[in-house]
This record gives sequence, structure tokens and C-alpha cells, in this order.
Amino acid sequence: MVEKAEAIFKEFREHSIAEFFKKNRQMLGYAGKIRSLTTIVHEYVTNGLDACEEAGILPDITVKIKQLGHDHYEVYCEDNGPGIPKTHVGKVFAQMLAGTKFHRFIQQRGQQGIGATGCTLYAQITTGKPIHVITSTKNGKVYEVDIMIDVKRNKPVIMNEKEYDGDWHGTKVRGEFKEVTFNWSEYGPGEYIRRTAVANPHAKITFIAPDGRKITYNRAVSVVPERAKPSKPHPKGLTIDDLLEYAHHSKERTIRTFLVKTFDRMSNAKADEIEKLTSIDFKRKPDSLTWKDAEEIIDAIKKVKFLAPSTKELKPIGEKQIKKAILNVLEPQFHAVVTRPPSVYRGGVPFIVEAGVAYGGKAGRVVGDSVGAEIMRFANRAPLLFDAGADVITKVVNEVDWNRYGLKKVDTLPVSIIVNVVSTYIPYTSAGKQAIADIEEIHKEVKFALMEVGRQIGGHIRRERKKYEKQTKKMTLLKYVPEVAAAVAALTGDNKKELEMKLVKMIEKKYSGNGADEEEGEEQ
Amino acid sequence: MVEKAEAIFKEFREHSIAEFFKKNRQMLGYAGKIRSLTTIVHEYVTNGLDACEEAGILPDITVKIKQLGHDHYEVYCEDNGPGIPKTHVGKVFAQMLAGTKFHRFIQQRGQQGIGATGCTLYAQITTGKPIHVITSTKNGKVYEVDIMIDVKRNKPVIMNEKEYDGDWHGTKVRGEFKEVTFNWSEYGPGEYIRRTAVANPHAKITFIAPDGRKITYNRAVSVVPERAKPSKPHPKGLTIDDLLEYAHHSKERTIRTFLVKTFDRMSNAKADEIEKLTSIDFKRKPDSLTWKDAEEIIDAIKKVKFLAPSTKELKPIGEKQIKKAILNVLEPQFHAVVTRPPSVYRGGVPFIVEAGVAYGGKAGRVVGDSVGAEIMRFANRAPLLFDAGADVITKVVNEVDWNRYGLKKVDTLPVSIIVNVVSTYIPYTSAGKQAIADIEEIHKEVKFALMEVGRQIGGHIRRERKKYEKQTKKMTLLKYVPEVAAAVAALTGDNKKELEMKLVKMIEKKYSGNGADEEEGEEQ
Repeated sequence: MVEKAEAIFKEFREHSIAEFFKKNRQMLGYAGKIRSLTTIVHEYVTNGLDACEEAGILPDITVKIKQLGHDHYEVYCEDNGPGIPKTHVGKVFAQMLAGTKFHRFIQQRGQQGIGATGCTLYAQITTGKPIHVITSTKNGKVYEVDIMIDVKRNKPVIMNEKEYDGDWHGTKVRGEFKEVTFNWSEYGPGEYIRRTAVANPHAKITFIAPDGRKITYNRAVSVVPERAKPSKPHPKGLTIDDLLEYAHHSKERTIRTFLVKTFDRMSNAKADEIEKLTSIDFKRKPDSLTWKDAEEIIDAIKKVKFLAPSTKELKPIGEKQIKKAILNVLEPQFHAVVTRPPSVYRGGVPFIVEAGVAYGGKAGRVVGDSVGAEIMRFANRAPLLFDAGADVITKVVNEVDWNRYGLKKVDTLPVSIIVNVVSTYIPYTSAGKQAIADIEEIHKEVKFALMEVGRQIGGHIRRERKKYEKQTKKMTLLKYVPEVAAAVAALTGDNKKELEMKLVKMIEKKYSGNGADEEEGEEQ
Repeated sequence: MVEKAEAIFKEFREHSIAEFFKKNRQMLGYAGKIRSLTTIVHEYVTNGLDACEEAGILPDITVKIKQLGHDHYEVYCEDNGPGIPKTHVGKVFAQMLAGTKFHRFIQQRGQQGIGATGCTLYAQITTGKPIHVITSTKNGKVYEVDIMIDVKRNKPVIMNEKEYDGDWHGTKVRGEFKEVTFNWSEYGPGEYIRRTAVANPHAKITFIAPDGRKITYNRAVSVVPERAKPSKPHPKGLTIDDLLEYAHHSKERTIRTFLVKTFDRMSNAKADEIEKLTSIDFKRKPDSLTWKDAEEIIDAIKKVKFLAPSTKELKPIGEKQIKKAILNVLEPQFHAVVTRPPSVYRGGVPFIVEAGVAYGGKAGRVVGDSVGAEIMRFANRAPLLFDAGADVITKVVNEVDWNRYGLKKVDTLPVSIIVNVVSTYIPYTSAGKQAIADIEEIHKEVKFALMEVGRQIGGHIRRERKKYEKQTKKMTLLKYVPEVAAAVAALTGDNKKELEMKLVKMIEKKYSGNGADEEEGEEQ
């Protein structure tokens, strides 16, 4: 057995995270040629929007896709963000798990520090070529460089560095990819960008497709959205391990000030309350906390009441903005939107659900010659096109009884159902970031949001239907006016023309108005 | 803008893979208290079975779960595998992306080198405690140790090492976990182990539950399954990048011998054919290959015909063994199984689909008082309990028209539908390894397999129904025998008793046999 064990472990190796994702690239969204191209566009657009938002800039993003050969494309993406300091460019594009987003409690589209490096990796393994980056922070200098990734070490390889004068800010990235393909389906980059426009009415996005089509989504609103700020973790969401990690990195002098400064809703009074429930002297240094101590503190926290996590750092799109975006992009016959009040999952992570329904116009999904319903899922405004089956939003949409809201056979209607989940931490089911895990609290909020827009749109539809029914009755009655007038005239000897006019006036009067006012009270 | 960019990038950090999975633990299956406990059992059982298989040992696995408090459990797992050499124990249990499985083309349950370390991480962040490991390779020494993980560095921390005399082989691991819970649902460890027994008839598995219940699944077959061996990659599945990586690590002297030795189905004749299609001198050293050269070779490979990948290294459970396992565990009224011929996806990865259907007995899923259908999904014999919605097997099961096979309202029947996908590389949708990606070739094979077992079981059911109908007719007729006999006796004066006996004999004769033989030909 010794030899067997030794023989087996002769094969023992250590691998880098880049090797892991190279082998398991479907986990990053590189599965299928269309999805792969959409993933690349997603990563670059997401980074551009996040960067603009963090710097308080109205985003102006251009995406251009050019076909170079069979399953072979060039993707170019340009943003007017703050730019990337020279020292960080390599790591942003060619080192996994490096970034500004991973460790902060902040609401952003990206959150893992993997995406852009995934693109570089995919370019490299399909074409052997580096990606090309031009960036400037408006410091008078433009930095231009080719970047590859040393997969075994998960480190950037910098080539052909250039630096020259220039006076702008932003980032331009260009990469060449094989094993990708473009189409106009609901999974393609075009749809990705259309949905991005719906959820980001403050962004101007220009898309130039391989067939030369140029689509521009202009800003529907010109206000820079408030910058999302990092929020403090809430005590109720803390594990013992978290608490220890924060404590051991704290520069505060006492456990007491450490608690008050580090956590959300932790007042001096609350810290006192906790101290009394434990055997720990809160004047000790925070880095002296042991697992045992931390366990005592967490147990005490469970017994103490706290205000729910502050949600002021969550930035939903907002009902007004969603309305504008829907009108701008979908031009629907009617629509309804709602932004739910903030809620909390896992005890400590705040989130907000927003939903909208658009009916008619350009809403819905074109299937061949006919139109059907489409579900537009978003996480922190980034569209989720794939893995719909694993996503909590899809599950809830399928649970809602749309019949109740006048949307019978909703699948066959020109309807767009829009849901955006906003949070400092979106619980994705995988690194591909395409499905939100089915967590009870999120499930419930999505359901409430959809029921609310359902009721609103149901009202519209009911009114519309009554209007239509009235209109039909009126038209039917008007059709018989000449005959009825002739018959009455023959009987009474009255003037036929006059009778006709009187009858028409009677009908017009009875069926005037928008046709549903009198029964308005019926709605709930 | 300079200051803004600098300010943003002041937050730039680098993280380890362990930090990544600590934050995103739902990606490893740590989402929900039941799923988390099942994930732990899954990782340990999988490692035990893989180790036994690789060493050619009939597995004898014991899993014991003990409740220590509210949402607080101890998991103990013991296997009789070859044991782990002392120098590797730390890395096996506390270093992510280290292992023997990641880089080889071999059919095993585990394939990523993350699982066992994930358990250590979860023990650590929920209880602050190390896991305890005892192992021996039958070298006369037993090694016992406590292991934690240095999350920031993704390195093992070894504590309380002991070494003493002993004469056995195997590994025992014990860990303490919080934020986990046990139940007997279809997502719990009990169900996980039941399904493992179905797919591993050669394993003896003992499960001791927190409530003291002890369940033993005895071996249904006592033959050690053939050891899965690493297979060579097939040329048609190669990317340029793969080819370069193999070439740069090759010890062969020429490109020609490198190609012939490294790849499946690559004969000397094929290598010659490829050389002629390129401008490359195949007497050059393999590590001299450039991207351009490799591109030429891959283009040439596309033009050359190869035999399909050899599949002799794939080890399905086998129809006979599945039958035995089904009878052993599910004791069904009838059943059908099929092992499909090997197939290939992505051009180069071989796989086999096996399927079974069991009806009646202990088959199906108990829902309250009634029984319903259950889908048992397996990947290389490891049960997949979660993320059913994202899995290709679930999709296909839902696509199959079970009515055609006499399984009307299949959801409500006592049916277990079993599918095992066997491959050197299972394309999981995420690191949680619970769903197989919907890849066209796999989709098709699963469908064929299910249609085949459907037809078989359909035959059984049709025969069974006929038998039942016959039986019913017979009983009805027998019921009237006394009356008929009495009436006839009154008419003819014959002996009533004799007439009765004659009538019964006639009926018995007509409705003898299993009742369906005469129409056997009807089946397709």
C-alpha cells in the first residue's frame, strides 16, 4: 500500500487560480461561442460603467465588434472613466483576484476581480495574442501597452509599453478572440447592450455591430447617479471568523472603539450592552481577541436588538429613471414600475428589488414572426442573460399568477418583465455571475415587487379592455343607425337625417370619455 | 481626475483563491444549512471512493454525523483507501488547487482539488477549529494531525502532529461545523449516501445519523471496478494554447515523436500527414514551437481524419451492476437499465451515459403520505442533489414524453429515474459541482438513454397492465360461476358442483400464464 500511496501522490501538483479558470472557463461564462462574446462585452462594459460611477462621471461607452474571420472577432471598448494609473494597468487586465472591489462592501456591477483578466486569458488561449490597452488619468500622459497573462503564476506580462502626451481621461481596450461568434439573438452582445441601456438611463452607449449597424442609446436622464459608497458591515450578519479578521486588522486602541467604528448601527450604548453580556474587558486591544472571546461577542450580538442595516449606500435606479428608460428604449403602450423598500438577507446584507413591466410597443421578444414575453434580469444594473433556470428572478416570474393581472398566456404577449436586484453583495450562484441564488428574503421581495407591478399593469389592461369593448359596442350601434332611423322615419314620418343625427349624438354621449372611469373603484 | 483615479486604486488589493472561496462560499456548495452539511459529506465520501478506486481496493466507508448543538454538528468519515503520505496531508486538506486530479485526463468523482480544503475552511470560519486527520499507508506508522488553513496565503497550518506505530491503511477525518443542519429530506446527507450506494454497488457504506439510526448499504457486487487510467488528449479537442503547453513541457526530441507520444489516435502515419500540410520541419524540438507553428498544426489537424477518441479508459457502472444496485437499494417491482455506447463532446472529450428506471418498491420519492417520481443525477457515480434546474439531465427528463411509455403523470408515480454521466472531464456549470452544463452532445446521449429505458419499462408496464386486466376479468367471471352453474344445472339437470368445477377450469385455462405472451410481438 505504501508504494501505491506514493505512486498516487507522485502526481500531486499545485495550481494557480488562472490555471483553474483556464481549465474551467465555462465557470466564467466561456461556454458556447455567442455566450463567450457576450461575456467579453459584459466584462468591459461593466468595468467602464463602474469606473465612471465611482468617479462621478456620466458614462459615454462605445463598443465595437469587428469580424476578422470564421468564429474570429475583435472587440473594442472605450469609456470616459477616470482611467487607470500606470502601475495598476497590468494587474487590472491580467491578474485574477486583484482589484478594488473584492474586499469592500460596495454596490457595484463587478465584485470579484476576475472578469477583465478572464477576457485576457480567453484572447490568449484562442489567438495567442495580448490585449491592447490605452488609458489616461488626465495627468497629461497617455499609457499604451500590450498585456498577456502568465497563467502558471497568475501575473501580468507587460509588452510594448509606450507613454506619450495627451489630455483626456478614460480607458480603451482592444482584444482579438476566436471561438466566439456574433448574432442578434436574445443571448448576443446586441441584446446585452439594449438591456444595459434599460437599467442605466444615465449612460450613453454606442454599439457598432460587425454588420456595420450602429445603435446609439442616448441618455434618458442627465444626472450623475449618486456614487455608491462602501458601507459598514452590520453586526447581525457577522460570523465569529469575520469579527476576528476585522479585529486583527483594526488600528483602534480598544475593543469598544473598534466595535463602534467598524460596524453599522453599533452605538456606544450598544457596545456597552454587549460588554455587559460578556466576560470580556472592552478596554483590551482588538487584536487580543481570541476565538473564544469573539464567540462570546457574537453570542451577545444575537441577544441585542439593532436597527436594520442602513441602506443609504444602496443606489437603486429609481422609479422615475426606470420609467424614462423604459419609454426611451421600449416605447411601450403601457408600463408599470416599482422600487421596493430596502430589505436585508442573511441577517446583515442590505438589498433592494426594483421591477417593471412594459406592454406593447417594442416590449417583448421577437420569436420568428410573432412576439413573446421576455424576462430582463439585472444585478446592480448589469443584465443577466444566461443561466436563467438557476436564477431566483426566473423562478419567481414563473410562480406569479399573471392571469390575475389580465396577462393571460403571458408567454405569448408583447411583454417585458424587468427585475433589478441591488446589493452590496449579490449572491451569484457561480463565478460566471449570471444567476442570483434563491435566497428566501430575496425571493420574497422579488415576488412582492412583481405582484405590485402586476396589479398596476392589470389596472391599465382592464381599463384598456373596457375602452376597447365600449368602442366595439359603439361602432356596432353606429352601424345600425341608418337602418333604425329609416325604420322610425317610416313609422313616424319624422325626418330621417335628423333622426340619424339624434341617434348618433345619443350613442356618442353614452360612450364618451376614456371609457372606464365609472368603474374605477373596482380596482384594488 | 488624476486624484480620483489614484484614490480609487488606493483600494487595490490582491487576494488568494482561499479568500475568494471564503467570500463566495455558495459557489462551493455552502449555501443553506442542509446543503452545507451534504456538501461536507459529499467531499469526504468522494475522496474516499476515488482513493480506493485508484488503489484497486473495495471501498468500505463509514460516515457518522453527531449533533453537538443547535446548527452545530460533527462529521466523521473513515475510508480504507491507500492513505495519504505524511508530506501531502496538509495540502490535501488545506490548500486549494493542489491535488492529483486537476491536471490529468482521468475519470474521477473529484476533479478540482478544492473540495476537502473547502470543508477545512468551513470548519474554521464557523467554529474556529481545525479538522483532525488520522492516516496510514500501511508503512507501519500512523500519522495524526490537526489542520487549519492560512486563508491569506492559501497554505496549510499543521498542529499537534503525532506519529506512532500501527498496521493499517486508510484515512479518518473528523471536523466540527456550525451553520449546518441535518434532516432526512431529498437534499440531506442520508439521501446523498443512498444515491451513492445506487451508483457504487461495489462499495460498502455505513451511515450513522445524528438520531442514532445506522444504515448499512452492503456491496451488491464484490469485484473491484477496473481502475480508471489517465487517457491521452485527442487531437480534435486541442486548442493552439493546449498544444503549445504540451509541447513546451515535452521531453521528446522531435515534434514528430512528441505528437505521436502525447496524443490519442496519433499514429506515425497521421503525424506524417500533418507535417505535409504544414511548413514545419517535424525534426525540430517540440519546445521550439511558436504560436504560428501551433496554429498551422491545429489547422492541419482539422483537415485530417482521426479515429474517435478511445474510450477504453472510461469506466461506466455497467448494466449488470446498475441492475444489482437498483435491486439492492430500491427493490422495485420492475426496472430497466441501459449503458449507451461511448460518445465525444467538444471534439475531444469522451463520455458515456447510463440510465435506469425503477418502478414500485422503494423507488420514488416520499412526499408526505404519497409517493412521487425522483430524478437521481450522477456524474462519475457521484450524486448531484442540488442545482437541478441548471442541469442537462433534468432538462432532458422534462423533455421526454413519458406518457408514451405508459408513465402517465410520471410526477405522481413511484418511479426513480437514474442517469449517470461518465467522463474524464465533467463540464460542471460551477465549482459547486452540482450541475452538468447543457452541451449538445451530452443532451442527445441522455435523451437516447432515457428513451431506451422508457421503451423497456413501457413494455413491462404494458404487460403488467394486461396481466392486471386479465386477472380482473378472471375474477369477475369466477364470481358468476356459482350462479351460471346453478342456472345451467336447472336447465339441463346436470350436477351443479361438476358444472362449477368445469367452468372454473375453463376460466383458469383461458387466463393462465403471465397474461401478455400472446401479444408480445406488439412491442417495438
